[in-house]
Amino acid sequence: MIDEDTTLDHHWLKMTQVELFCDEETRMYGLIGKMKVIPGQREALASILLEGVSGMPGCLSYIVAHDPNDADAIWITEVWDSQDSHRASLSLPSVQQAIVRGKPLIAGFGERFETTPIGGQGLTTR
Amino acid sequence: MIDEDTTLDHHWLKMTQVELFCDEETRMYGLIGKMKVIPGQREALASILLEGVSGMPGCLSYIVAHDPNDADAIWITEVWDSQDSHRASLSLPSVQQAIVRGKPLIAGFGERFETTPIGGQGLTTR
Repeated sequence: MIDEDTTLDHHWLKMTQVELFCDEETRMYGLIGKMKVIPGQREALASILLEGVSGMPGCLSYIVAHDPNDADAIWITEVWDSQDSHRASLSLPSVQQAIVRGKPLIAGFGERFETTPIGGQGLTTR
Repeated sequence: MIDEDTTLDHHWLKMTQVELFCDEETRMYGLIGKMKVIPGQREALASILLEGVSGMPGCLSYIVAHDPNDADAIWITEVWDSQDSHRASLSLPSVQQAIVRGKPLIAGFGERFETTPIGGQGLTTR
């Protein structure tokens, strides 16, 4: 029941939307990670990643970037509609093939952060 | 002139696209950053950020996320069509207002990485 004295202004409506969006069952899942590449192989690995990850179910954003300060490093930022969708993607044939092709080009892993995205621009509709 | 012996298969076409996309004049600009929030103010700050940043010219992706391991931290990942567009956004009235409203809620800054995005899913067309 809504208290009629409550001022339901734009700000608070937004807050409520954010809270609903963060509800346990609808929680998005994000990853920010740095990959170290065998010297000279950055373009090849980036190309494999960009080819391999199109059309993954539940993927709302998947961006591959160069590290401007390290010629042998790549940043990948991902947003999924759930952690389950991310897990499931690792079994997709296209992703499996990308892993097989890309693995020999990877020298190691750098920073890795999990996030819980709550909104913004550049997320495809779930 | 194209050498007719060259096999212009899908892979190499992709590589060329990536290289063209990374050309100096068309280079995208990315930011990955962590913000520390005054305890209890994370929802309020996230709400201000999400309201203030819609419709920024040259913004291809702007995602706000909670840090699942720190109740007082927010991650922001951004992609711009150029570093100039990012700089220019800081003068927009909507962004200026968000800065004024959000600043008192910010306790400090954590990790910050610049990137050079080259492609992926979730980038609006330039």
